[in-house]
Amino acid sequence: MKLQGWTLPQSATGRSSIVAPPPWHYSGEIIAVDFTAPPDVVAGLLPQGLEPTPEGSASVVFADWCSASDNDERVLADPGVGQYHEAYIVLHATRGDKKVGRVPFIWVDSELSLLRGQIQGFPKKLGQIAMTKPITLGRGGVRKDRGSTFAAHATAHGRRVVTASVSIDGTSERLPRAATLPLIHTRLFPAIDRPEPSVHEFQLGAIANFECGTIYTGSASLELGATEFEELAPLGPVKVGMGYVFSMAFSVMGGKVEPA
Amino acid sequence: MKLQGWTLPQSATGRSSIVAPPPWHYSGEIIAVDFTAPPDVVAGLLPQGLEPTPEGSASVVFADWCSASDNDERVLADPGVGQYHEAYIVLHATRGDKKVGRVPFIWVDSELSLLRGQIQGFPKKLGQIAMTKPITLGRGGVRKDRGSTFAAHATAHGRRVVTASVSIDGTSERLPRAATLPLIHTRLFPAIDRPEPSVHEFQLGAIANFECGTIYTGSASLELGATEFEELAPLGPVKVGMGYVFSMAFSVMGGKVEPA
Amino acid sequence: MKLQGWTLPQSATGRSSIVAPPPWHYSGEIIAVDFTAPPDVVAGLLPQGLEPTPEGSASVVFADWCSASDNDERVLADPGVGQYHEAYIVLHATRGDKKVGRVPFIWVDSELSLLRGQIQGFPKKLGQIAMTKPITLGRGGVRKDRGSTFAAHATAHGRRVVTASVSIDGTSERLPRAATLPLIHTRLFPAIDRPEPSVHEFQLGAIANFECGTIYTGSASLELGATEFEELAPLGPVKVGMGYVFSMAFSVMGGKVEPA
Amino acid sequence: MKLQGWTLPQSATGRSSIVAPPPWHYSGEIIAVDFTAPPDVVAGLLPQGLEPTPEGSASVVFADWCSASDNDERVLADPGVGQYHEAYIVLHATRGDKKVGRVPFIWVDSELSLLRGQIQGFPKKLGQIAMTKPITLGRGGVRKDRGSTFAAHATAHGRRVVTASVSIDGTSERLPRAATLPLIHTRLFPAIDRPEPSVHEFQLGAIANFECGTIYTGSASLELGATEFEELAPLGPVKVGMGYVFSMAFSVMGGKVEPA
Repeated sequence: MKLQGWTLPQSATGRSSIVAPPPWHYSGEIIAVDFTAPPDVVAGLLPQGLEPTPEGSASVVFADWCSASDNDERVLADPGVGQYHEAYIVLHATRGDKKVGRVPFIWVDSELSLLRGQIQGFPKKLGQIAMTKPITLGRGGVRKDRGSTFAAHATAHGRRVVTASVSIDGTSERLPRAATLPLIHTRLFPAIDRPEPSVHEFQLGAIANFECGTIYTGSASLELGATEFEELAPLGPVKVGMGYVFSMAFSVMGGKVEPA
Repeated sequence: MKLQGWTLPQSATGRSSIVAPPPWHYSGEIIAVDFTAPPDVVAGLLPQGLEPTPEGSASVVFADWCSASDNDERVLADPGVGQYHEAYIVLHATRGDKKVGRVPFIWVDSELSLLRGQIQGFPKKLGQIAMTKPITLGRGGVRKDRGSTFAAHATAHGRRVVTASVSIDGTSERLPRAATLPLIHTRLFPAIDRPEPSVHEFQLGAIANFECGTIYTGSASLELGATEFEELAPLGPVKVGMGYVFSMAFSVMGGKVEPA
Repeated sequence: MKLQGWTLPQSATGRSSIVAPPPWHYSGEIIAVDFTAPPDVVAGLLPQGLEPTPEGSASVVFADWCSASDNDERVLADPGVGQYHEAYIVLHATRGDKKVGRVPFIWVDSELSLLRGQIQGFPKKLGQIAMTKPITLGRGGVRKDRGSTFAAHATAHGRRVVTASVSIDGTSERLPRAATLPLIHTRLFPAIDRPEPSVHEFQLGAIANFECGTIYTGSASLELGATEFEELAPLGPVKVGMGYVFSMAFSVMGGKVEPA
Repeated sequence: MKLQGWTLPQSATGRSSIVAPPPWHYSGEIIAVDFTAPPDVVAGLLPQGLEPTPEGSASVVFADWCSASDNDERVLADPGVGQYHEAYIVLHATRGDKKVGRVPFIWVDSELSLLRGQIQGFPKKLGQIAMTKPITLGRGGVRKDRGSTFAAHATAHGRRVVTASVSIDGTSERLPRAATLPLIHTRLFPAIDRPEPSVHEFQLGAIANFECGTIYTGSASLELGATEFEELAPLGPVKVGMGYVFSMAFSVMGGKVEPA
């Protein structure tokens, strides 16, 4: 190719490309809430080959990320580019005899994350996301400790899609399933000249360097909102489970694909 | 497929998909400015097979769009979804014996437009775009008439990328080349498991229903800004040509692709 | 004063001030819907001396404004500064034997409008506002004509506060009351060193140059949303009346104040 | 008063008011850079009675705040309301024999902060602000430690106004002057019916509960941008001094006022 760039826009140098290829690194603060929904509704959001758990288990995850890219130093250096918030649903599922996760809906507040996610098969949309962030000095915020409540909400197209909170009353040695289930994504890029997509395949991320801080746990609240553009509302009213507040980090080294 | 949707997110109904397939319809207000840049710099932004004009001619186009989709009535019905602003550069080029246009950089302020554009090969990034809009009553704004100045600017990642204005002093029967050159796009979707892209092809839109209102013309100003993330600055300082203010509408019925 | 500026920030020149003093000029596109609410709820949002109408009549108004300032040419010249959207409620009321209007809640998407409004006593908050805008060419949008539906919505702090639509089926010679009732505002600026406010007075704007285009009318829909930060929800579920779509322009030459 | 609320909008309960009266609490992450500018330019931005230092010393401060309000529990509870970023200039000055600070320009990305600031006399405008935030796990971001670079930038009306960075190479026992100089603000609220302002007075905040974490120091970069709406550019090109990265917390209990 004369023009360079892993994504558009391409140029002679490739430096205008929105996304550079992996490895990508992530360090974030997480607020997560487990819930269960009617298993048949969960099943309706799973692709071929994935089955819901008998109880219809799932999680909502909010994340406040810093991200970096080995192939683009600007992502770490410019504070306006690599940082973002996201909110997503993880449906707990089985694929054959394996426990897996599936993200049917996800919102982010960043161009880089939106497109980097689409390449991996995360079905990212833009949204406005707010999360309690932990403080260590003074009285202006909330400490990551027993007795604190961490809240989070996400809005898309002017409608509140997710509202959640976790009131910390303990810690856990066990990672929440939302953080451990390997995610099965669908990479999908439509053709413009025929009905069949140009790309339609499963993708499993190659994750490395996973780290996790103290996992604070507690009772939680969760509300999924009805909108014209998403199909979240059928999942609710959900039965709310445990909530989690923790720091997490990992790297995406690439991924492997399978026919979808 | 069990799950439906032309793009992610997929669901049982397909109604969560960000983009529905064409036809797509566009009605907009345009502010455009012709300019010339060093032909070798223009050449550096053109893909294989396209040559700059001898004078390095190009245009900047700002558009305030309303858009609609035959396959998703929500795009027209919800005023927060189908409307958007965009700013882009069109390089005037030749491909063999044909005059064509190439968009090396474009910014929009809408999720739908960003992804609909990427599918066509428009190298869309997110930006904040402001344009003088014509009024017909009172003194709060600017009328589309002789003596008026229409201004526009675009900002990306906190840096002003384009600042332009047109001071109307007449009208023209002739459409600006920015509106008539057929655009050659590159559809590019990277693979996640190998260096070669999954999709890399030229795309030419199938345009129909073209309409244009009175073409107001006048002297213009234009400034391209330096940023860490785009490679606009080498095009400047540009020699500024004619400016245009007009209404335009068309439909995208699909497109045809060629090997890139 | 050594430093100049009608508002902060002040400087030697006064050119950093966010707002310049009136006259201010407005040209806009309006979508309005009449409704009635329980008169006692309306009464609870009216200041001393204002009474609700027997039927509890009120209106919602969405406006897409271009604005200009005689004392700051930048407001007209920079398209990013003087343009904004707003959404507000007007309660229809009587003050002695006069018919007046009162704006209990209003949202705008502009810094200039927010602060210019606070100075006049408009209780402006920031919001995200979307409105169908009329097109004249093509199929990308909606024409201001019989058979068209104009929609609008406003969101604040991530919650939808107002959702409205008007389906045009005729025109009217008579201006909607939302556009004709003189508005009684409360200018309120708190003190920092004592409980009593530094400024607390009624304000009536001095309006001039009023112009109005064809008034399109039709059946309407309206939904007021519940939020943690506004007290709109008690007004509903409202009884929806006539809807209006029209262009409007006027100037604010200043105002007169009275004890509140 | 029949209607309640420290600020607009007022209602029967007062719960719609944008701002509740102090005490207000703040916990934040700070990136600050000292600089010097021509003393006569600094003098031109100081109000009557304040003199620049002989060297024209000043600082730029970026802050990522969590805030809370004793009189409105929602500010702490809703993560979308009390959190914000700000960027400001502090001019170092003398007032008689006292060392004081003056903030001529400040940008925030929050409605609450904008109006809470205007009440205190902070000349707050809206802006888009990005700051490196410290991480403690993984490789997605930057640790608050020797060898790290913290960057920050602010954009207003589509123009970059401040770009700064600090490369940490040590720590200091001494607080930067930007954090210790008592700030002299001007509370200014214009009248609408006469040229003289309704409120024009100096304000000094009553600060309590000051806390500060480890003060990381290092070499810094700083660039002030030219815009149509601010008068920053005359301060530059500045001579850049020491940079600082630290956590800070304090409470505003109220303030006292003096004739301006």
